[in-house]
Amino acid sequence: MPLDSDQKREVEALRAERFETRRATVPALEEVLYEPSPVLDHGFSRVIDYMGDDAAIVQAARVSYGRGTRKITEDRGLIRYLMRHRHTTPFEMCEIKFHIKLPIFVARQWIRHRTANVNEYSARYSILDREFYIPAPEHLAAQASNNRQGRGDVLEGEEAARVMSLLREDSERAYDHYAEMLNEGEDGAPLDENRTGLARELARMNLSLNFYTQWYWKVDLHNLLHFLSLRADPHAQYEIRVYADAMLETVKRWVPLACEAFTDYRMGGVSLSAAGLDVVRKKLAGEPVDQASSGLSAREWRELMESLGQPSE
Amino acid sequence: MPLDSDQKREVEALRAERFETRRATVPALEEVLYEPSPVLDHGFSRVIDYMGDDAAIVQAARVSYGRGTRKITEDRGLIRYLMRHRHTTPFEMCEIKFHIKLPIFVARQWIRHRTANVNEYSARYSILDREFYIPAPEHLAAQASNNRQGRGDVLEGEEAARVMSLLREDSERAYDHYAEMLNEGEDGAPLDENRTGLARELARMNLSLNFYTQWYWKVDLHNLLHFLSLRADPHAQYEIRVYADAMLETVKRWVPLACEAFTDYRMGGVSLSAAGLDVVRKKLAGEPVDQASSGLSAREWRELMESLGQPSE
Amino acid sequence: MPLDSDQKREVEALRAERFETRRATVPALEEVLYEPSPVLDHGFSRVIDYMGDDAAIVQAARVSYGRGTRKITEDRGLIRYLMRHRHTTPFEMCEIKFHIKLPIFVARQWIRHRTANVNEYSARYSILDREFYIPAPEHLAAQASNNRQGRGDVLEGEEAARVMSLLREDSERAYDHYAEMLNEGEDGAPLDENRTGLARELARMNLSLNFYTQWYWKVDLHNLLHFLSLRADPHAQYEIRVYADAMLETVKRWVPLACEAFTDYRMGGVSLSAAGLDVVRKKLAGEPVDQASSGLSAREWRELMESLGQPSE
Amino acid sequence: MPLDSDQKREVEALRAERFETRRATVPALEEVLYEPSPVLDHGFSRVIDYMGDDAAIVQAARVSYGRGTRKITEDRGLIRYLMRHRHTTPFEMCEIKFHIKLPIFVARQWIRHRTANVNEYSARYSILDREFYIPAPEHLAAQASNNRQGRGDVLEGEEAARVMSLLREDSERAYDHYAEMLNEGEDGAPLDENRTGLARELARMNLSLNFYTQWYWKVDLHNLLHFLSLRADPHAQYEIRVYADAMLETVKRWVPLACEAFTDYRMGGVSLSAAGLDVVRKKLAGEPVDQASSGLSAREWRELMESLGQPSE
Repeated sequence: MPLDSDQKREVEALRAERFETRRATVPALEEVLYEPSPVLDHGFSRVIDYMGDDAAIVQAARVSYGRGTRKITEDRGLIRYLMRHRHTTPFEMCEIKFHIKLPIFVARQWIRHRTANVNEYSARYSILDREFYIPAPEHLAAQASNNRQGRGDVLEGEEAARVMSLLREDSERAYDHYAEMLNEGEDGAPLDENRTGLARELARMNLSLNFYTQWYWKVDLHNLLHFLSLRADPHAQYEIRVYADAMLETVKRWVPLACEAFTDYRMGGVSLSAAGLDVVRKKLAGEPVDQASSGLSAREWRELMESLGQPSE
Repeated sequence: MPLDSDQKREVEALRAERFETRRATVPALEEVLYEPSPVLDHGFSRVIDYMGDDAAIVQAARVSYGRGTRKITEDRGLIRYLMRHRHTTPFEMCEIKFHIKLPIFVARQWIRHRTANVNEYSARYSILDREFYIPAPEHLAAQASNNRQGRGDVLEGEEAARVMSLLREDSERAYDHYAEMLNEGEDGAPLDENRTGLARELARMNLSLNFYTQWYWKVDLHNLLHFLSLRADPHAQYEIRVYADAMLETVKRWVPLACEAFTDYRMGGVSLSAAGLDVVRKKLAGEPVDQASSGLSAREWRELMESLGQPSE
Repeated sequence: MPLDSDQKREVEALRAERFETRRATVPALEEVLYEPSPVLDHGFSRVIDYMGDDAAIVQAARVSYGRGTRKITEDRGLIRYLMRHRHTTPFEMCEIKFHIKLPIFVARQWIRHRTANVNEYSARYSILDREFYIPAPEHLAAQASNNRQGRGDVLEGEEAARVMSLLREDSERAYDHYAEMLNEGEDGAPLDENRTGLARELARMNLSLNFYTQWYWKVDLHNLLHFLSLRADPHAQYEIRVYADAMLETVKRWVPLACEAFTDYRMGGVSLSAAGLDVVRKKLAGEPVDQASSGLSAREWRELMESLGQPSE
Repeated sequence: MPLDSDQKREVEALRAERFETRRATVPALEEVLYEPSPVLDHGFSRVIDYMGDDAAIVQAARVSYGRGTRKITEDRGLIRYLMRHRHTTPFEMCEIKFHIKLPIFVARQWIRHRTANVNEYSARYSILDREFYIPAPEHLAAQASNNRQGRGDVLEGEEAARVMSLLREDSERAYDHYAEMLNEGEDGAPLDENRTGLARELARMNLSLNFYTQWYWKVDLHNLLHFLSLRADPHAQYEIRVYADAMLETVKRWVPLACEAFTDYRMGGVSLSAAGLDVVRKKLAGEPVDQASSGLSAREWRELMESLGQPSE
C-alpha cells in the first residue's frame, strides 16, 4: 500500500484547501493534484505543483504581453508546428513537480536524465521503510536470447517459484539485518542497550536495489517529453516504463494539445536515415531495391521493413 | 514608456482574472503578477508565473507528503541552515518566469547564465521597435583609471553633451536605415513599391547594442539567487544591476524567508581564504601580522582590511 | 583579413611545437590545429584543443580498460548503432575547443545552445577592433514572401547598392564615434587631453550587431552534432550556416566514423510522424490515400510529399 | 584487487604507446595516465584523458591567439585573481576524463553532480562481478549522537564482529542467488540446462548497495573543483571522500597553479555572513559582542567561534 494513514491524512488536508490565483490554472490537473497514482507494488507518482498550460507554450513562442490564446485551433496549429520542427524552447516554459516512490534500480536509470531538479529521501540521514519490489508473476521475464538487453518469455513453474522466494527472502533478511545493525527503534531508543548501532550512512549498504526510495522530481515539459519518449518506449525496461506511462497520463491532463502533438510526432513516428529514405522513395517509384543494394545493414533493413509494414525479404 | 496602450490592455485583462487552485499561492506576489516594474528608460521586469513558496523549500528538503510548514520559526531555521551550508537543491524546487525588456548589450551579459529557459523576441522573424537605451546624465560614467573593468566619475559639460548626442543620433539614424532597408510599413505593405526590402535577418545587423529586445526568462530559485549574487553586486555593470535590484524586490515578495537568508549569508557576507582566516585569527589573538608576513598579495591584503573595517597599513 | 601579423606569429609558434603524449591523438586534426579557417569577411573558426577520437566513443560505450578499438569494422558498426538508436552519452566523451571570430548577431543565435563552455572577448574590459560584417553581393537577400523567417531572391541594382552603402557607412560612423567617446589611443594615452573618455562598458553600446566579437567555445561531440544538425541545416541563417559548415569539416577530420553516421542518420534523414508513417505504409500497400483522408494538414502533406519525392497532389 | 590480469595487460599496452601532438601536454599527469590509484577495498580512480593545463585557463581568460603563458608568475597571479573573484568560466576550459570503480551507494551520491558526462557499466546488459565493499574495521563507525547525518566512534568488540559478518554473509549470499537466478556460466552456457535464467535487468535487483559498479566520468575543471569542495570536505561521507582525495592528487599533477589557488581560497577558507562579519569587526575594534547581541543563533555562534579559534562563550 503506497501511503500509510498519516500520509493519507496529509494528502487529504492538502487536497481540501483552495486558493485564489491569477496564474494560468488547469482544472483537469487540479483534480488529481497531490493524489498518488499507484505504480508497481509499493510505488506511486503524484503531482505536487505545476506552472503553465498549453497557452503558456504559445505565449512564450510569441513573447506576448497577454495570455497566449487567441483561438484554440490557432494554438493547436502553432504547438504542432513547434513540435514538428523541434522548436523546443517554448515547451521549456511549462514546469511540473512530481513526488515519485520507486525501487532504487529504477531510480538509478532515471537519474541519468540530468536536466531536472531532484530532492531524494536521504538514507544517510533517515531510516528507510521495509518496502521492496517483487515482480508480479507475469513480469518475471527470462533473459532475451536474441538481444542482450531485453526480456524473453516469462519464467514458469519451479524456476519462477524459486526466483520469487529468493528475491523475497533475501530482501526480508537484508532489512532485518539493516534494522539490527542500526539498533534503533521507532522512538529512536536502542533496540539493545548493550550495542551502539552502526551509522545510517553505512547500514544502508546492506539493502538491495529493489528497495524503495522516493524523491521530488521537477522538470520542464520539453525535458519531460524527452524522458517519456525514451522511457515510455517499448524498449525501456518494464519497471521504469510503468512510471512513464503514468506520467504520460498526467501530461495528457495538463497540456492536452502538446501531448497530442507529442504522441503524433514523437511516440508513434519513426526516423528514416538518408539511405532509408532513399529505399522508401525507390519503392514508391516502383524501382527495385533490396538490402544488398540499399547500403543498409541486414539489421537496419529488417528494422526499416518492419516499421514500413513490409516483409523483410 | 515601457508598454503601449494595447499591451496595457492585455496586462489589465490578465490581472482582472481569478482562478481557483490547490497549489501553494503567494498573495504578496499575486498582487504584482503581470505588472511591469520600469527599469532604465524603456525596459521592465514583470513576473508571468511562479511555482512554490518558502514552504516548498522545506517540503522538498524533507521529501514530505504534506505541506512543508510546521511552524514558521522551524521553517526559517531550516531555510537558514540550508543556505548557510550550501544545500542548494531544495531551492531549485521553486521556479519563476519573468518577462524582461532590456538593451541588447545587457541581454548579452545576462545570457551567460546558462541554467535558465529563454524565449527571446526574434528579430529574424519580426521587426524591432524604435526603442534604444540612452543613459541618464548621472550614469554617463568615465572609464575608471585604476580598474580596466569599471567606471569612474561622471562625464560633465561639453564632453557629456557630445556623448549624449552621438549616442542618440547614431541610434536614430541606425533605426531609420533599418526601416528603410526593410521597406515595410506597419501594415506589411512596402514603403516604396519599387524596392523589394532586405531580409529581416540581415537588416537587424544595422541596429546598435543599445536597442531593446525582450524575452521570457524562467529560472529556479537557486539559480536566480546565484544570478542576483553576481548581478546585484556593486561590481556589476549599472545597467544590469538595476534589473537585478528589481528582481530582488520580487524575490522578497515571493519567498521572504529564503530572501532574508540569502541577504544575510550571501549578499552581505565575505569569503575568507585560508591565509585570510589566519590573519583574522592572529589579529584576534593579539599576535602581530602584516601584509609581508601574511602570504597575501598587496591587493588581497587591501581587500581584506577593507572588508574587516581595518586600516590597510 | 582574419589575423594580423602578431597573431599569425603566435599561431605559427604554437604550430611549430611538438609534444609527446600517451593520449589518443588524431593526426588529421593535428594537421590543422590552431590554423584558422576563414569564414565570412573577417571571421574564422580554428581548433585549439581536442580530447578523444572515434575509438573513445566505443571505449566509453563499453566502459573498457584498454583502447576501445577492436577492429575498425566493429567500431563502425557500434558507432552507427549508437547514432541510430540515439544512445547519446558515449558521444559526450569526446570534447573539442574552438576559437571563433564571428559577428555579434551570429553570436547571439549561437549562444542559445547552452550546453557548452564559453569565454568571450570582453568589450567591458577591452576595446573592440574596427571589423564588421558586410554581406557579399550574392548574399544580400530579400525577405522571403512566403515565409516570415527566411530569405527570398537577392537584391539587385540600385537597392542593393543603397543597402551596401548604408551598412558600410553606418558601421564606419559607429566605430568612429565609439573611438571618439573612448578617447583612447592604441598606447592607452587620451586622444584629446581635455576629455576624460566614456567607460568602455558604455561606449560599446554604440556598435552595431554586425561588428565582430570572438570567443573560445568548448563543447562535447554530442552537443556539437546537435548544434550542427540545426545550424548546418538549409533553414539556418546563411551567416551561421557557414560556420557550421566549416566545423563539420573539422568533425570529419576528427571523428570520421561518427561524422559519417551523423551525416547518414541525422543530416540526410527525415522524421515521419505516426500519421506520416501511415501514409507511407498505405502508399506502399497500394491503398488510396490523400491529404484529406490522411489527417495531415495541407502544409504537412506538402512537406511529406516533397521529402518522399512524390507530387503534392 | 582492483584489476585482473587481462585488465592489467590492457592498461600496460596503453601506457606503452607514445604519440606526437601539438596540444598542450602535462608531463606530470602523463606519468600516471591510465594507471589506477586504489581506493577502498576494490575500487580505483584512473585518468583516461585530459584537455588543457594551467596555461589554458589564462589563454581562455584572455581569449588569446597563442599559448596563454607569459611568465609563470603572471599566470599564477591571474589564476588566483580568477579563483578569488569567482570568475569560473576560464576553469571550464580544462576537461578531464576518469574511469572510476566504486560501490553503488557511493555512485548514488556522486551522480547528484549533474554537470558531467557519464557512461556507466550496464547491469541491464552485462553481468556484474562478485565484488562488494566491506569497511575496514577502523571505518566501522557508529551513528553520531549529536548529528543525524554523521558518524561517531568506531564500533568495537562483538558488535563490530557481528556487523562485519552480517555485511559479508549477506553480500555473498546476494551474489550467489544473483548468479543462480541468471543461470549463466562465464562462457554464456546455462548452469542448469533445465532452467531458463532470469533477465539480467531483473536479477540485478538482488544485489545490495555495497556492490561495485564502474563508470567513465568526464567533467570540466570548474565543476570538478566544485565536486571536490563538497566531497573532499570533512563533512562528506568517508567512502566518497577517499575518491575525492585521490582526485585532488590528480588535479595537483594536472593544474598545479589552479589547485594551489583552489586549496587556498576554497578548501581552507570560510564564508562569513553579514552578521558574522559584523561580529569579527566588533571584536577587532575591541567592542563587546556576544551571541545574544550578535543576531546569530547559538549554533551559528559556535560555528563562527570555532572557525576563528575563539572560545565559544
